Amino acid sequence: MVERIAIIGAGPSGMAQLRAFEAAREGGAEIPEIVCFEKQSDWGGQWNYSWRTGIDQHGEPVHSSMYRNLWSNGPKEALEFADYSFDEHFGKPISSYPPRAVLWDYIAGRVEASDVRRFVRFNTIVRWTRETEDGFTVASENLTSGDTVTEQFDRIIVASGHFSFPNVPDFEGLENFTGEVMHAHDFRGAERLEGKRVLMIGASYSAEDIGMQAHKMGAELVTLSYRSHAMGFDWPDGVEELPLAIGFDGNRVTFRDGSVREVDAVVLCTGYLHKYPFLPDSLALSSPNNLYPDGLYKGTVWQQNPHLFYVGAQDQWFTFNMFDAQAWFVRDVILGRIELPDAEERAADIRHWLAEYAALPDHDSEVVYQANYIRDLIERTDYPMFDLDEVVRIFQAWQQDKQVDIARYRDKTYPSVMTGTMAAVHHTPWLEEMDDSIERYLTP
Amino acid sequence: MVERIAIIGAGPSGMAQLRAFEAAREGGAEIPEIVCFEKQSDWGGQWNYSWRTGIDQHGEPVHSSMYRNLWSNGPKEALEFADYSFDEHFGKPISSYPPRAVLWDYIAGRVEASDVRRFVRFNTIVRWTRETEDGFTVASENLTSGDTVTEQFDRIIVASGHFSFPNVPDFEGLENFTGEVMHAHDFRGAERLEGKRVLMIGASYSAEDIGMQAHKMGAELVTLSYRSHAMGFDWPDGVEELPLAIGFDGNRVTFRDGSVREVDAVVLCTGYLHKYPFLPDSLALSSPNNLYPDGLYKGTVWQQNPHLFYVGAQDQWFTFNMFDAQAWFVRDVILGRIELPDAEERAADIRHWLAEYAALPDHDSEVVYQANYIRDLIERTDYPMFDLDEVVRIFQAWQQDKQVDIARYRDKTYPSVMTGTMAAVHHTPWLEEMDDSIERYLTP
Ligand SMILES: Cc1cc2nc3c(=O)[nH]c(=O)nc-3n(C[C@H](O)[C@H](O)[C@H](O)COP(=O)(O)OP(=O)(O)OC[C@H]3O[C@@H](n4cnc5c(N)ncnc54)[C@H](O)[C@@H]3O)c2cc1C
Ligand SMILES: Cc1cc2nc3c(=O)[nH]c(=O)nc-3n(C[C@H](O)[C@H](O)[C@H](O)COP(=O)(O)OP(=O)(O)OC[C@H]3O[C@@H](n4cnc5c(N)ncnc54)[C@H](O)[C@@H]3O)c2cc1C
Ligand SMILES: NC(=O)c1ccc[n+]([C@@H]2O[C@H](COP(=O)([O-])OP(=O)(O)OC[C@H]3O[C@@H](n4cnc5c(N)ncnc54)[C@H](OP(=O)(O)O)[C@@H]3O)[C@@H](O)[C@H]2O)c1
Ligand SMILES: NC(=O)c1ccc[n+]([C@@H]2O[C@H](COP(=O)([O-])OP(=O)(O)OC[C@H]3O[C@@H](n4cnc5c(N)ncnc54)[C@H](OP(=O)(O)O)[C@@H]3O)[C@@H](O)[C@H]2O)c1
Repeated sequence: MVERIAIIGAGPSGMAQLRAFEAAREGGAEIPEIVCFEKQSDWGGQWNYSWRTGIDQHGEPVHSSMYRNLWSNGPKEALEFADYSFDEHFGKPISSYPPRAVLWDYIAGRVEASDVRRFVRFNTIVRWTRETEDGFTVASENLTSGDTVTEQFDRIIVASGHFSFPNVPDFEGLENFTGEVMHAHDFRGAERLEGKRVLMIGASYSAEDIGMQAHKMGAELVTLSYRSHAMGFDWPDGVEELPLAIGFDGNRVTFRDGSVREVDAVVLCTGYLHKYPFLPDSLALSSPNNLYPDGLYKGTVWQQNPHLFYVGAQDQWFTFNMFDAQAWFVRDVILGRIELPDAEERAADIRHWLAEYAALPDHDSEVVYQANYIRDLIERTDYPMFDLDEVVRIFQAWQQDKQVDIARYRDKTYPSVMTGTMAAVHHTPWLEEMDDSIERYLTP
Repeated sequence: MVERIAIIGAGPSGMAQLRAFEAAREGGAEIPEIVCFEKQSDWGGQWNYSWRTGIDQHGEPVHSSMYRNLWSNGPKEALEFADYSFDEHFGKPISSYPPRAVLWDYIAGRVEASDVRRFVRFNTIVRWTRETEDGFTVASENLTSGDTVTEQFDRIIVASGHFSFPNVPDFEGLENFTGEVMHAHDFRGAERLEGKRVLMIGASYSAEDIGMQAHKMGAELVTLSYRSHAMGFDWPDGVEELPLAIGFDGNRVTFRDGSVREVDAVVLCTGYLHKYPFLPDSLALSSPNNLYPDGLYKGTVWQQNPHLFYVGAQDQWFTFNMFDAQAWFVRDVILGRIELPDAEERAADIRHWLAEYAALPDHDSEVVYQANYIRDLIERTDYPMFDLDEVVRIFQAWQQDKQVDIARYRDKTYPSVMTGTMAAVHHTPWLEEMDDSIERYLTP
């Protein structure tokens, strides 16, 4: 009997999984019956932007955390698919840091060529999963009709992302702050922050980029506030970085070093939760956002029940091509091309990667670690191997560029690791570009 | 064997249900084993205010739609419990339109006296329900620990409210509006609308009250925009009412009558969805917000499976005392004190109430209809009957007061239907009162 596989989510990870199976089918393999559940009306996950915040038109949490004028925050050369290049998709060189719509187009382009859309049930949310003797039952709801169905599956691949459920801590006095307070998840654009004094809490990508967006759109003062480590970039005038905010009194904020600021708006850039409300605790990953969530063999196979898989559950230096490496690996386990070792051997492998991760001395070594992880996966499948060391060097150059000018690093260009093509310089520098549409981007 | 009952939600409706069972127990009855699931950390439902918007600290949709400076929008004399008066709770007369915290205190006061809190599992969300041969299984998650359990219940009482999942329609061009856009559900206070031009879409309680809040807090212009009927109050200067907004172009809004306004913020006061993400479609109520949702015998018993009940599913003129009437009725069905007629008879009764509802000529008759519905319930149980005609008259006077002065109606007072006590005049008129704390309210 043909196996039935559920893929939960049609973001970049779920799309990679569809593509992986399709590639096997094109190569002559018999593939299982696939149902990909996607709660949104289109695929692309985070890249499928919505103006909505909080709760969507179906009463579901809005998925995407992206916003107007979001450009790639890493060079596209680091995320390029090994089996579908930017050259192939766009037919001409483009810049290294494209805006959201351009990357969405690229991700979708690869899968639109084949007919995998037929596997996706859009507007359909997975509500609940049960382990049964010979697999799982999955209860899902068609959000348009309200119809619910419960079906049997042999394996489940969770590809629901982990940057959607905001981590929203409380701060003393915040309940009486009468300005605008939001989590980065609900930030959609900085235009209305013009002339305002804005506080960002957090010291990672969201704080950095939303802070710079506010600066770009004319905020009077952007104050960034860190808990553990300052980002420490050479911030432009009008942007400053302080230790953690410890309390609000009306619109006055006090920081751990005694500084005080009056602010009009607060954006909590405090990260996201791994959250799988459709899974019982025996199947649900629980982890901080890191490079090796515990409990996953090869970062994908659920140790407690190896018929369950996760794709894209790691924190991400690498993105699209890492999802590919994982999707090809998961596919080959399911197709029986890769034999899973027994539980003890899997546990030992997990321990090995966790120990290596724990021993990493710095950021640069994190990139190397993730490159090694990807290499380990690709070596086991027929996914095209690519020059991972070169990608690591690109990441290092990127970090260097950010140190030099945090407002201008996106104007830099890199050569493709896949095709060697040098990226084009975009017609307008990031700091001056106010139109992030694909039409404008592709106009010479 | 003792039956096991699940109550989903510990808002006013769930609390009424707990109180109903407790009253029976005090009267010597044997009551079933009760588990009340409440996803928040405290009871009170909507009345349990949170500064949070969108998604809460556990990654769940924020439940309450209430905001700072929310006062009762109907006279408290219309919602008073028949078995626990305001006199008994506060020990002195209070005004007719108390602020949120004061009503929360009152609701909680009644149940705190008894020991029903022991039945409530706080921070515990119901995830999924299945019909089984002899009842239901309910899967729930402890949001603090992440633990999930699946348990068997004989009956389920749904008391999860229906003003929490916002109905968020789209409007042409809204995706490019760069001002603040939110649904009333995420509105927490109008202070930051001072000096702003604000658009409210909708023509019901939220539009009216949030519009008046914005006016109270110094908005430059409040524009209300209706789809079906204007509210038509004698709005103060600085508040206007226009037909439906049909499109946005930047911050310019065009209305159906050709009017154009520039606005800084938009509040979608477009109501809420009946939504029960924890129920399969065979159990989930689906209805517009109205006085008699189809499918419920006596507005409470699920016709398709009479072991499932809903409390508080109606649109609400009456609130707390209507929930009581329903809770006592549901309790007595469960205790076997009331025998349910067969399916055909129940269907006929539903048809009867639906037909009467469909034939109502106006608003005033809606109040009478709901009063009749409540009377029909109370007559079947030992809940203390009260003068429902007098409550109807109070509702009529209230509507009159709103016609006279929409900014001052909350300064009026009414006598209690339960005790005859005349309400006190609050020390500060609503329009001037900026502190809605219970401490200030109770200070003479
Ligand atoms: C603000 C922000 C900016 C980013 N910018 C970049 C960038 O510049 N470059 C980069 O490489 N990466 C970026 N990322 C990282 C991003 O996470 C990845 O690029 C990628 O989107 C992850 O893909 P995914 O498929 O794993 O998850 P997602 O993209 O989150 O997709 C998950 C999908 O699962 C669906 N889903 C979830 N739950 C259910 C359910 N119960 N039932 C059915 N469907 C469900 C969702 O609707 C969604 O479509 C950014 C992330 C964020 C939050
Ligand atoms: C903005 C606003 C203002 C209002 N003002 C007034 C007023 O002035 N006067 C008045 O009489 N009425 C007012 N109401 C009406 C209000 O709906 C009722 O007063 C009352 O709160 C309804 O009680 P409930 O218990 O049915 O629902 P809710 O109060 O909504 O309570 C439902 C409870 O169920 C819980 N819950 C939901 N889903 C789950 C789940 N899956 N698992 C576990 N727990 C769950 C929630 O956390 C919540 O505690 C107002 C409503 C709104 C939205
Ligand atoms: N393309 C773009 O421009 C762009 C923009 C934004 C985001 N992204 C992507 O989005 C993803 C998520 O990034 P992110 O920055 O949102 O999350 P993140 O990388 O997980 O960082 C979370 C931050 O919040 C801080 N934090 C958590 N809890 C806190 C608390 N209670 N008090 C103070 N600080 C707290 C953390 O500080 P500690 O270090 O102290 O834990 C950390 O700085 C990444 O993949 C990123 O690449 C991309
Ligand atoms: N205590 C207080 O002061 C207070 C304040 C706010 C709310 N509340 C309570 O909260 C509850 C909910 O009230 P509510 O006003 O939020 O909801 P509601 O009473 O259900 O009203 C919804 C409104 O939205 C309009 N609407 C819906 N879809 C629309 C669309 N696509 N375009 C334009 N208009 C649309 C409806 O217009 P149509 O008539 O055309 O359908 C209606 O006017 C009530 O119980 C109320 O008493 C109390």
